Amino acid sequence: MTSHQQAVDALRDLLGDRLSTGPSILDLHGRDAAYSTPRAPDAVAFPDSTEEVSEIVRICARHGCPVVPFGIGSSLEGHVIPVQGGISLDMSRMNRVLKVNERDLDAVVQPGVTRTQLNRELRATGLMFTVDPGADATLGGMASTRASGTNAVRYGTMRENVLALTVVLPDGRIIRTGSRARKSSAGYDLTHLFVGAEGTLGIITELTVRLFGVPERIHAATCAFEDVESAVDTVILAIQSGLPMARIELLDDFQMKGMNLLSPELDLPEKPHLFLEFHGTEAGVGEQVETFRDIAEAHGVSDFRTATRTEDRNRLWEARHNAYFAAKALMPGCSAVLTDCCVPISALAECIARAKSEIASSGLIAPIVGHVGDGNFHLSILIDPENPDDFARAKDLATRINAAALDLGGTVTGEHGVGTGKMRYMRAEHGEGWDLMAQIKRAIDPANIMNPGKIVEA
Amino acid sequence: MTSHQQAVDALRDLLGDRLSTGPSILDLHGRDAAYSTPRAPDAVAFPDSTEEVSEIVRICARHGCPVVPFGIGSSLEGHVIPVQGGISLDMSRMNRVLKVNERDLDAVVQPGVTRTQLNRELRATGLMFTVDPGADATLGGMASTRASGTNAVRYGTMRENVLALTVVLPDGRIIRTGSRARKSSAGYDLTHLFVGAEGTLGIITELTVRLFGVPERIHAATCAFEDVESAVDTVILAIQSGLPMARIELLDDFQMKGMNLLSPELDLPEKPHLFLEFHGTEAGVGEQVETFRDIAEAHGVSDFRTATRTEDRNRLWEARHNAYFAAKALMPGCSAVLTDCCVPISALAECIARAKSEIASSGLIAPIVGHVGDGNFHLSILIDPENPDDFARAKDLATRINAAALDLGGTVTGEHGVGTGKMRYMRAEHGEGWDLMAQIKRAIDPANIMNPGKIVEA
Ligand SMILES: Cc1cc2nc3c(=O)[nH]c(=O)nc-3n(C[C@H](O)[C@H](O)[C@H](O)COP(=O)(O)OP(=O)(O)OC[C@H]3O[C@@H](n4cnc5c(N)ncnc54)[C@H](O)[C@@H]3O)c2cc1C
Ligand SMILES: Cc1cc2nc3c(=O)[nH]c(=O)nc-3n(C[C@H](O)[C@H](O)[C@H](O)COP(=O)(O)OP(=O)(O)OC[C@H]3O[C@@H](n4cnc5c(N)ncnc54)[C@H](O)[C@@H]3O)c2cc1C
Repeated sequence: MTSHQQAVDALRDLLGDRLSTGPSILDLHGRDAAYSTPRAPDAVAFPDSTEEVSEIVRICARHGCPVVPFGIGSSLEGHVIPVQGGISLDMSRMNRVLKVNERDLDAVVQPGVTRTQLNRELRATGLMFTVDPGADATLGGMASTRASGTNAVRYGTMRENVLALTVVLPDGRIIRTGSRARKSSAGYDLTHLFVGAEGTLGIITELTVRLFGVPERIHAATCAFEDVESAVDTVILAIQSGLPMARIELLDDFQMKGMNLLSPELDLPEKPHLFLEFHGTEAGVGEQVETFRDIAEAHGVSDFRTATRTEDRNRLWEARHNAYFAAKALMPGCSAVLTDCCVPISALAECIARAKSEIASSGLIAPIVGHVGDGNFHLSILIDPENPDDFARAKDLATRINAAALDLGGTVTGEHGVGTGKMRYMRAEHGEGWDLMAQIKRAIDPANIMNPGKIVEA
Repeated sequence: MTSHQQAVDALRDLLGDRLSTGPSILDLHGRDAAYSTPRAPDAVAFPDSTEEVSEIVRICARHGCPVVPFGIGSSLEGHVIPVQGGISLDMSRMNRVLKVNERDLDAVVQPGVTRTQLNRELRATGLMFTVDPGADATLGGMASTRASGTNAVRYGTMRENVLALTVVLPDGRIIRTGSRARKSSAGYDLTHLFVGAEGTLGIITELTVRLFGVPERIHAATCAFEDVESAVDTVILAIQSGLPMARIELLDDFQMKGMNLLSPELDLPEKPHLFLEFHGTEAGVGEQVETFRDIAEAHGVSDFRTATRTEDRNRLWEARHNAYFAAKALMPGCSAVLTDCCVPISALAECIARAKSEIASSGLIAPIVGHVGDGNFHLSILIDPENPDDFARAKDLATRINAAALDLGGTVTGEHGVGTGKMRYMRAEHGEGWDLMAQIKRAIDPANIMNPGKIVEA
């Protein structure tokens, strides 16, 4: 009997039918939302509590069996795939909002709570949780990939929005990091070590996250430009002039074409667009919109449409959140290779220009969409999954664009994370810093059981 | 010859007269700005470059000789005191602003640059660096203590304001962490690991920090209340209602008495005060001030004075930055034991109430001042340095107040850091998380040469 099998048997004693080896469950936990080679886990465990997670980890540690945390599996770089087999730890049953501290603008949640669930439960409070990746991801998964979304330019990413964590370490110890105090200088910043660690250092079993008051006034808008350059220059100037944009998203003409296929009700011209949102007081939002329009008009904006009714706004942002699927709609049956560069805002125009010229010479279709207020944009490079040549060309295109981002002082991943897919860039991005990451991994997880094969070579 | 002496000899060959063993230099590098037992280093090194710091560290590592980084020594918990002897590494010669990226709102600086120096060099740009501890500290020291100041409620602490670092590791390797991109998910967050590490994991030799545009309109104000409770309740309501206060500082009646001794030109009534600042557009600031006044009036505010002229504002904040010395002016010749609690804002009133009742029963004088918008406040517990009984009572008072802060879900240090002075609280605050910190320390600095005896027991 293999050591994995021994772990599975011991876990069955602990969990009963909350340990599954059903083929469809295994299959579901062996793939992610993008283009990685699937591999099924030996079993999927569905824990109910922090203490149970600790028990599970102790059992797996005893048998040297890998543990791969699983939120909803919406990550895009092979994160959740158990490349060395082992246990997929599905957090979906730990999905309760434990406490909303309205007076402190924070909430304590279990890791399986999703972003839309949390906002639904907050509805009566006048508060909101702001981080919004396109997928309805879990907060544990989002913390672990250091996720962000359309609001990050104003309200920050998971890096800024996680205040405290409960974590089960690879030896089963349970620790609490951070506190509900807004700042602290009490030693090493363990919270930020686990945020973005992709489950390689431990399992997050509880999170305290920041909330914000729903602004008095919300004003959404879309506007079209003749070319991507004009749209990007508008963004750069808006950010540099200190406009507190709540959302400022770029969609190029290809992306808009896909969007019209998927969300025809929006009926927007197939030109490069910015999708915008302004938050503030009545007067403040008025000022912001005016300043923004002045900047946009200097860059030849056309078709400035506003959406102030809640349902119109929701429709707009739902379409934006589905941008990945809209891009894929351009080529039925396609797969997509994604890039996730993020550069200093001053380099954004240059980086996108280089990307566009690389796309042109590749002959591939690759719509561009991005959280451009942060300097972050994605290509969805569309490929025929049956055509291995397509995949090679897409990887080559991604490599060139990532090299450009590093060359311009940026990062190859603004928000998706490393998983297995982006490991090949880590040496170029971090130099010897990558070795230090591996040193930390080995110190915390010497047996390398926590999501092995991701982020570092341990 | 001891190993420390061997290191000193080798360093002299490298540095010439930039290695000092002069008694007054040693003395200066063997004490901090508060109440810790002095101990001189074996020598003080004044490096000029990252490469030289790396050389120094390699030499010290070879001889097992401690290295204690030194900014300007304004920290308050014994941080810079070489408790095991060794080399004090004075960063004051590495004091150049290397680059201001106006279009990206960031600056690259050497660690010996001070906060006022950076702002002086930024004057022509319309940009500002916002973190402002009372002392004119170095940015390397501020990053290493995760410092904050009066603006943190709006612009964040060093945690939010450091984007990237160059660090010399305990074995001499040089790494770069982070990048100038505003966000990244490329692996473990090494930047945040070094921010707040108090020189125990390596030496920061370059920092990229965030800048903000100087707001169109700045409006400062002071206002008095009948009691501390009313002032604190005003703060809590202002923060909870989402007012984007740029500064909101509490000074109790004792603190105001001291301030009138040190800064009589302010001529403010000796009642509990809030010192305020509002940043924004002309219209935005008008709105903010109005909303704030409504809240304050509901809490019996009196003597609302505004300061819009730059020189009046500067005078006000200079007085605030000297609050520590103002407190000490109440008892000529005294020393002070400081507390630095930070609690969730909903617990602030309760925590300050408990502190005041503990002060009353202690019979000691302990003015209260604080960055209350963050839930952070300080007691300066005044003691006669000749009277050991005073010191014991002060420590006892501090212990009780820190216990209250932990009990209320807070931290014993919101911004000053651990050093040696706050180590005795770490177990209570972090539980087994403190062991994890020690594990990380041992992984990165196995020989324990970087500022040994601080934060963790390695
Ligand atoms: C259509 C679409 C749009 C997207 N848009 C965005 C976007 O705008 N911004 C963005 O940042 N991402 C985006 N993503 C990617 C994805 O949604 C994020 O990476 C998200 O954070 C993943 O959350 P999840 O719950 O699906 O986690 P999973 O994919 O299940 O897991 C992600 C990683 O975290 C680990 N993990 C999960 N839970 C825990 C836990 N409790 N403790 C420790 N480790 C854990 C896993 O092991 C894995 O390494 C998008 C994905 C899709 C499909
Ligand atoms: C009057 C007064 C008011 C104050 N007000 C505040 C306040 O409002 N907020 C606040 O946060 N603090 C405050 N402080 C405390 C102090 O100013 C801060 O802790 C500051 O960050 C220390 O900076 P420094 O340059 O003096 O560092 P130092 O005291 O020289 O060093 C601090 C720590 O950082 C390490 N260190 C220094 N440079 C480096 C480097 N380059 N690389 C690695 N490690 C390094 C040292 O080893 C030490 O552990 C105040 C102090 C005084 C005296």
